[in-house]
Amino acid sequence: MSEIDANMWKVCASDVATRTTNPIRAVVDHIKTKPNPNKSMIPLSLGDPTVFGNLRVSSVVEDILIETIRGGKANGYVHSAGPLEARLALAEWYSIPNEDKLSADDILIASGCSGALEIVISAIASIGQNIVVPRPGFPLYTSIAESRGIEVRMYDLDPEKGWEINIAHLESLIDEKTSFVLVNNPSNPCGCVYSKEHLEDVLAVAEKKRVPIIADEIYEHMTFTGNTFHRLASLTKTVPIITVSGLAKRYLVPGWRLGWAVVYDRNGILADVRKGMLAMSQIVLGANTIMLASLPNILRQVPQSFYDETMATLEKQAQALIQGLTGIPGISIIYPQGAMYVMAKIEVDKLKDISSDVEFTEKLLEEESVMVLPGQCFKIKNYVRMVFCAPPEKLSEASARIADFCARHSA
Amino acid sequence: MSEIDANMWKVCASDVATRTTNPIRAVVDHIKTKPNPNKSMIPLSLGDPTVFGNLRVSSVVEDILIETIRGGKANGYVHSAGPLEARLALAEWYSIPNEDKLSADDILIASGCSGALEIVISAIASIGQNIVVPRPGFPLYTSIAESRGIEVRMYDLDPEKGWEINIAHLESLIDEKTSFVLVNNPSNPCGCVYSKEHLEDVLAVAEKKRVPIIADEIYEHMTFTGNTFHRLASLTKTVPIITVSGLAKRYLVPGWRLGWAVVYDRNGILADVRKGMLAMSQIVLGANTIMLASLPNILRQVPQSFYDETMATLEKQAQALIQGLTGIPGISIIYPQGAMYVMAKIEVDKLKDISSDVEFTEKLLEEESVMVLPGQCFKIKNYVRMVFCAPPEKLSEASARIADFCARHSA
Ligand SMILES: Cc1ncc(COP(=O)(O)O)c(C=O)c1O
Ligand SMILES: Cc1ncc(COP(=O)(O)O)c(C=O)c1O
Repeated sequence: MSEIDANMWKVCASDVATRTTNPIRAVVDHIKTKPNPNKSMIPLSLGDPTVFGNLRVSSVVEDILIETIRGGKANGYVHSAGPLEARLALAEWYSIPNEDKLSADDILIASGCSGALEIVISAIASIGQNIVVPRPGFPLYTSIAESRGIEVRMYDLDPEKGWEINIAHLESLIDEKTSFVLVNNPSNPCGCVYSKEHLEDVLAVAEKKRVPIIADEIYEHMTFTGNTFHRLASLTKTVPIITVSGLAKRYLVPGWRLGWAVVYDRNGILADVRKGMLAMSQIVLGANTIMLASLPNILRQVPQSFYDETMATLEKQAQALIQGLTGIPGISIIYPQGAMYVMAKIEVDKLKDISSDVEFTEKLLEEESVMVLPGQCFKIKNYVRMVFCAPPEKLSEASARIADFCARHSA
Repeated sequence: MSEIDANMWKVCASDVATRTTNPIRAVVDHIKTKPNPNKSMIPLSLGDPTVFGNLRVSSVVEDILIETIRGGKANGYVHSAGPLEARLALAEWYSIPNEDKLSADDILIASGCSGALEIVISAIASIGQNIVVPRPGFPLYTSIAESRGIEVRMYDLDPEKGWEINIAHLESLIDEKTSFVLVNNPSNPCGCVYSKEHLEDVLAVAEKKRVPIIADEIYEHMTFTGNTFHRLASLTKTVPIITVSGLAKRYLVPGWRLGWAVVYDRNGILADVRKGMLAMSQIVLGANTIMLASLPNILRQVPQSFYDETMATLEKQAQALIQGLTGIPGISIIYPQGAMYVMAKIEVDKLKDISSDVEFTEKLLEEESVMVLPGQCFKIKNYVRMVFCAPPEKLSEASARIADFCARHSA
């Protein structure tokens, strides 16, 4: 501090900034331990498929991008919802078979699926209303809503039933102030994929309570053998649904920041919200135009083999991790059906000096240099989330270390 | 409408969305005329240098991007303020000679300069406070603030003095509820470039009133012969300044959505705001990682000749437009000193059937297929803004048509 007295200026952060938090950062920044310097670090914490280099975007996509750059015609400003061609390509992709096709007006492209969620949530929910989101669940829904001063209510997912939604609990949280219910399928952090019947039960609640649904389907089609993804919007003609998704996970490019919202509104219920979304999109033009101009060709030209190979790799990795973790006293696994995540329950009564998921995480890092995320990041206690994006040998190594760790701490 | 009654669902847009407007869209969408089908369209309305194909990004930049894509190492999530290398490169670029160098923590990269403005304004201003912005001025400042429910006050720029800030008026608007003053230099829509002395007068007001300044310098270094750009932060050691800028204009790539905020805070006054900015940046990760990873090389490798040629082209175009418009009865021009814009005053008393800038714009479009933006977009009456990004022959053609138009409508 020089002669100037900072207090004389009194420049504070805004109320909005003060109530804006990132629960993952808040938990992770408080982890008190460091990795074991004698063991190589194995991070199983980040939902980023690119970390290990084993999962890479299709070279077809790289070629499309380069053609766009060399073309020199995609450097300017575009429509705030995205250029027409890109929206038309998505409208085609997201249209439900045997129904009227979606139009470009049903699509809003943003800076990642996060950007789409920010626009949709801000456009639909007001202060004084509440939103209803899953627990455990992706923390961004809460961050966006709390930053905007909107109340968040959490419905339970039931680990005993493969993380199905507790329908009665969901229904009990909805009241006349509820702006929307959020359904995330396949789920982060649970790795579950819901059946048609279960999704129909959820839709019945929305129908009864007259509440629209935001369907976060960014892990769409990322399912393992024997599990089928059902697009929520394909199972109703009456409940208004806004689906959000993006390139990040399926194309292995989270850094590219290309996501979108798809408005399924057969009965004009969301006309007002749609206008609001467009208004919100005009403040900060979101996505990069090289990506936007490339999107139609990406959607059309990436061969099915790319998706198949990605999922085969992910499934093999999931198996390597599960296999290694199965039977370890002190933790129990719920077998994932898709996405990139598995949740492991920490049985604190079977571990002598570990009383919580956070403590498990801290000690595991300190002793074994394996990083996982404590369930508290997702508002659930005594679980940890592990990402199976690492190559099988690393995942086997990680689970061997976890086995050693649990044996050492066994009660 | 099918059997479902939309009213039974009562889904409205949020209060935030309802108060979010884009003044340019609001004015332009109300223009009642269509272009003359017998004349080719000449759009002088968009602040986008890529529209005509005469101004193109350096091929050096294209090469850097392609190398990044082929490298395959820039597809994952990065720090919410941008990767360290990119922030270090900007810290270097923005450090003030003969002062302590900026650090990576002083830089926050976002989705365009708009994204940076959204983060900075939301992080610093609360409901109940006011912000003080230029009139005429870039409408985004107002859009962001009003969307957040923050009061906007406008200080006058004086057309008689080359659009200098009316210092007394500025000072009169600041009170204890003022969160910041925004200074845009070089200016959109005015095309003016402020002298060192004038900027020092502005800083003296901020100093006296103890109010930080947001300096929108996205047209930095885009000045014409004889005019020098002075970075506001280089002229004070006491007033806390947050400078926002980006790749859009100087590199001719507005669609790429890469912008940033630079915190110049020698006395720790903005410590709290800095934390708030980081919190806001964690909600929606902004910029594209291909661009972010390429940024250090873009800043270092683009040859000076590219900047020089761009400015020579822009200056030649400005001259073509000015020359064509000079001496036309009914309009009077204020010679631009930089950026991409010229403001023309509409002398309604010299025009028989034109009573406003909006009417001028409508009739000019209908009769001559030349599109300009009415001053009302920038909150000033009886001016129109013209962009000189078109090639000289188009600008000469446009001004010839404007001359015909004014002659036809002369009082
Ligand atoms: C369920 C879910 N929704 C949305 C997102 C955000 O995706 P994006 O990176 O496209 O913003 C994620 C990212 O992890 C996610 O897991
Ligand atoms: C003064 C000013 N600031 C900010 C911006 C926004 O720039 P970006 O396209 O990087 O968001 C513009 C764009 O026209 C501008 O004129």
